Amino acid sequence: MTAHIADDLFSRAAAADSTDALGGYRAAFDLPTDTIYLDGNSLGPLTHAARDAVSATIDTEWADGLIGSWNTADWIGLPYRVGAMIAPLIGAKPEDVICCDSTSINLYKVLGAALAQRPGRHRIVAERDNFPTDLYIADQAARRAGPNHHVQWLAPDAAIESALDDDVAVLMLTHVDYRTGAMHDMAKLTKAAHAAGALIVWDLAHSAGAIDLDVAGCNVDFAIGCGYKYLNGGPGAPAFIYAAPVHQADIEQPLTGWFAHAAPFDFSPGFESRAGIGAFLTGTPGVLGMRCLEAALSIWRDIDLCDVRRKSRALGVLFVEAVATSDAAPMLTLASPRDPGRRGSQIAYRHPAAHGVMQTLIADGVVGDMRAPDILRFGFVPLYTRYIDVVRAADRLAAVILEGRFEQTSAADGGVVT
Amino acid sequence: MTAHIADDLFSRAAAADSTDALGGYRAAFDLPTDTIYLDGNSLGPLTHAARDAVSATIDTEWADGLIGSWNTADWIGLPYRVGAMIAPLIGAKPEDVICCDSTSINLYKVLGAALAQRPGRHRIVAERDNFPTDLYIADQAARRAGPNHHVQWLAPDAAIESALDDDVAVLMLTHVDYRTGAMHDMAKLTKAAHAAGALIVWDLAHSAGAIDLDVAGCNVDFAIGCGYKYLNGGPGAPAFIYAAPVHQADIEQPLTGWFAHAAPFDFSPGFESRAGIGAFLTGTPGVLGMRCLEAALSIWRDIDLCDVRRKSRALGVLFVEAVATSDAAPMLTLASPRDPGRRGSQIAYRHPAAHGVMQTLIADGVVGDMRAPDILRFGFVPLYTRYIDVVRAADRLAAVILEGRFEQTSAADGGVVT
Repeated sequence: MTAHIADDLFSRAAAADSTDALGGYRAAFDLPTDTIYLDGNSLGPLTHAARDAVSATIDTEWADGLIGSWNTADWIGLPYRVGAMIAPLIGAKPEDVICCDSTSINLYKVLGAALAQRPGRHRIVAERDNFPTDLYIADQAARRAGPNHHVQWLAPDAAIESALDDDVAVLMLTHVDYRTGAMHDMAKLTKAAHAAGALIVWDLAHSAGAIDLDVAGCNVDFAIGCGYKYLNGGPGAPAFIYAAPVHQADIEQPLTGWFAHAAPFDFSPGFESRAGIGAFLTGTPGVLGMRCLEAALSIWRDIDLCDVRRKSRALGVLFVEAVATSDAAPMLTLASPRDPGRRGSQIAYRHPAAHGVMQTLIADGVVGDMRAPDILRFGFVPLYTRYIDVVRAADRLAAVILEGRFEQTSAADGGVVT
Repeated sequence: MTAHIADDLFSRAAAADSTDALGGYRAAFDLPTDTIYLDGNSLGPLTHAARDAVSATIDTEWADGLIGSWNTADWIGLPYRVGAMIAPLIGAKPEDVICCDSTSINLYKVLGAALAQRPGRHRIVAERDNFPTDLYIADQAARRAGPNHHVQWLAPDAAIESALDDDVAVLMLTHVDYRTGAMHDMAKLTKAAHAAGALIVWDLAHSAGAIDLDVAGCNVDFAIGCGYKYLNGGPGAPAFIYAAPVHQADIEQPLTGWFAHAAPFDFSPGFESRAGIGAFLTGTPGVLGMRCLEAALSIWRDIDLCDVRRKSRALGVLFVEAVATSDAAPMLTLASPRDPGRRGSQIAYRHPAAHGVMQTLIADGVVGDMRAPDILRFGFVPLYTRYIDVVRAADRLAAVILEGRFEQTSAADGGVVT
């Protein structure tokens, strides 16, 4: 195969890999040898630590310890323990993050709690281009908060700040756009929400584990995020909730199951909320999923998020440069912001036959994904994506397009989970 | 050790085991050899099938298949597939049961849907002695359905039927009481709810997998249940929802995440519900937990629920007889109904030092549990509990009490999950 990318880029990539401070972390993952996996923003890969932890959970904790493992293996403490491990990745204190349920369910809880903190205000402001689950859940949260509550959906290019007035209870934003990777300015928009007397809720699904987040420093009120993307917790892994300490004094969330109770094992008929972040718990924690996520998070112990962010940017820059210098460049339109400071850890291109192109590319061993109608998505995960991977991926993308080896389809993919 | 139970009971138990039609199923479980495990009504034990399935999910589907396994391993179909396996255990058609989330969350969804089907009625009727999560969740569901909605809590011995009038939207009942094992008459109470124009919601947490249920035959409207007790899905396993076909035409449930959408991968901003039982889905399914539960359910394929119920009753009868004929009988008060037809698959006794007694009993290798303040709980699971186990357990219970080998504590256990 002749390369479609200049030799210079391959050698620069190899050089960058040889001095990469994060290069050693790739060994923590169980990656297929013949695949360049650029879909970790959709489903993070298996870590060896997670495999071992799940085995131990099943063979020792469950099979041998049985019911006693709720105490002896501290299954009971998992939501707190895993939350505390996520905390440093988003710039939070350990006691301000809890792991539970799914992103969708957690958003419902957090919106309920946020609306309760702003009585007399009736509006959630959000972007229509958001990931759809956020739209559907926000509609339900508003509808069930009171007869006059509703959501205002902003068009893609609307100025967010100008929608904020004294009827706005919550500004709900996704930090990194799931299609284009465009990233909001967390500090600025949080400040704007507060200036209007509103609270802010950030969805960090495409940020946590990829960006050097600082929710506490930005005075974020609430945040939620996903365990199965950059945190590598496994398919459908449990999600998380952050609440600022100031909002933890009197959490009124709508899904008060027995794990939200101050003393669940008193089995008392009257509800009395746990103090602190645990008030966001609902039912019995899913132990397998949490132990798996916990183990995947253990590899982060000594990682500096600034290194992660630096490499994430560099990978994106290199990929864009490689595509731009190939002969396929005119057939691809960059859908991500051109400024690396304004995008997350993924690069998206538009191509009219995105579906067909991605199918061939996957068959050629480069796994990205597509979003209807025409977006090709490539996620870069600094802990295991190598510089050489992104150059090779750009090369194979160019090859597929220049050689015309793709079906002319732009249909919805019909089943690959974001 | 001298036995505290008549020899005759030991030999009758051995004889019953030798002709037990379900005796072979014990080999499907990975049980500790030196323990009599009578807490499967709290956490079911590991099956070999579940261990193998989780390994395959991790090593093959996740590690090798990565994102593609949502399609190639049909992770996408798991909620339906697992739901269809639960269906025959509760007397439902495969297409009327879905597996998702936790029991608490599913109750919230189902109550929301049921209340929406009875506009103009404002009351949920329920029992105050219910498992607390149901109380807390029902309060929230009522509160968020409208300003006049509320829950009426019935005292332990109140006549349920007389609370049913034309303002009642939903009668919510737990089929088998988590403390005493007392079992409601599903057919009769469902009929009573309908006679009052109300819908019924049954919590089957302590029934599914232990009782020969017939939700379709009883015209049940909605039911929810637990995956980690008699279904052996593992700690915190996903739960399930049943909805009668008549209610599936227009489900309005409150937690409409993207998996409830008719075409989730169209990523369309407007919500349009899936047809059928899938409308109860919310977020991305937790794959590890579902694959684990799916495998545990696979052992039920050829099991006749009538055999299960028959053995469950017989185990309970034998245990009660063994305790009653021991010298410890005067120190124990049966908290379960005396009529085996009116109780589920557990036997409960009151003892003033229940906590201390159970601690010693567990140390002696008989694992039951206790519920504050004074209940000793013993669960019998026909697929692996042997007749000899229940006689031995009664013998050891009598020994602990007669020998006075227990602390005088009746405190809450502080952490054993129901």
